[in-house]
Amino acid sequence: MTQHQQTLRISTTGKSLCKITSQVQAVVVQSGVRVGLCSLFLRHTSASLVIQENADPDVLKDLENFFAKLVPEWENYIHSTEGADDMPAHIRTVLTQTSEQIPVANGRLQLGVWQGIYLWEHRQRGSSRELVVHIMGES
Amino acid sequence: MTQHQQTLRISTTGKSLCKITSQVQAVVVQSGVRVGLCSLFLRHTSASLVIQENADPDVLKDLENFFAKLVPEWENYIHSTEGADDMPAHIRTVLTQTSEQIPVANGRLQLGVWQGIYLWEHRQRGSSRELVVHIMGES
Amino acid sequence: MTQHQQTLRISTTGKSLCKITSQVQAVVVQSGVRVGLCSLFLRHTSASLVIQENADPDVLKDLENFFAKLVPEWENYIHSTEGADDMPAHIRTVLTQTSEQIPVANGRLQLGVWQGIYLWEHRQRGSSRELVVHIMGES
Repeated sequence: MTQHQQTLRISTTGKSLCKITSQVQAVVVQSGVRVGLCSLFLRHTSASLVIQENADPDVLKDLENFFAKLVPEWENYIHSTEGADDMPAHIRTVLTQTSEQIPVANGRLQLGVWQGIYLWEHRQRGSSRELVVHIMGES
Repeated sequence: MTQHQQTLRISTTGKSLCKITSQVQAVVVQSGVRVGLCSLFLRHTSASLVIQENADPDVLKDLENFFAKLVPEWENYIHSTEGADDMPAHIRTVLTQTSEQIPVANGRLQLGVWQGIYLWEHRQRGSSRELVVHIMGES
Repeated sequence: MTQHQQTLRISTTGKSLCKITSQVQAVVVQSGVRVGLCSLFLRHTSASLVIQENADPDVLKDLENFFAKLVPEWENYIHSTEGADDMPAHIRTVLTQTSEQIPVANGRLQLGVWQGIYLWEHRQRGSSRELVVHIMGES
């Protein structure tokens, strides 16, 4: 068993799902691991991870619309000094994922045919986000 | 340290929580791992994983009812070509889990007394779902 | 590669987020692992884990308020024998996390600057909760 840890920096645009499947797969290749587990950890509290449909971009729009309605910006939040979108961004993060684990076989992420990995930016403005990729397994 | 990776196929019925604790425990036994970590990954975007109460089946009905109300089928979704239940199924998946990790000790999943592992089918029709079980640890 | 598994008992007060970052970091130190992955698993179905902002306590109040509104206690739940707060506690657990994974480097959890680890008690009364910490990596 061996392990490989690497941090990716990902630039996001505001309130949108950014597909990162290929960047993560590239780290799996660099790790040399053929069979194992790839663990993802996002070092932020106002952006999150989801694994979702990679085909129809309308799914991403519906996700964005659903969460905008579920966690409205203009609620009466106590924590409001960092902007109207900040507390909703924290709640949206809590409702989705900060870490994900994906098995690896034959040197490839064992995602289903329709699965893509997404970094979901929940703030109105984009920024640079840090994702730690940790891979354990056998080469 | 050793590892064991195996894919289970699980037949679901529509919109229901299917208990899979014993199937996962059986893979732990086959792996020979006594102390370690069992990682589960569901290869789908319209079904998900939850760890929940294994005693009163009414809890599962209430979960189903709550999610049916939280993510209504007849909203005005853009992604609608695959049926009225498809986009809600994606949203319900995002709100729950695609991967779970459970520690193993003495060759057994270290679930709490009341915890069961469930595969949650979010589509109206059941289907065959693939769950990757990846176990790392010492035998 | 080595591993270390340890169970922490954490006393909670009712319906609140309890910061556990330092207890988890202490287990990482005890494990002797310098680079690896720290996996957390909560052995309960009415309390959960979240990784959230560690600075402004108002964020925690807003999270509590949001979930109180999203999952009301006085809905008509079928499962009601264990109190009005029990079924909402199960739903709140499903909407958040039972397991989390955090990478370790230089013997420290690789949390972002603003990230803290929280155990979220969803019942009205506090209790003693069991958290399994499983660390894999190299010393």
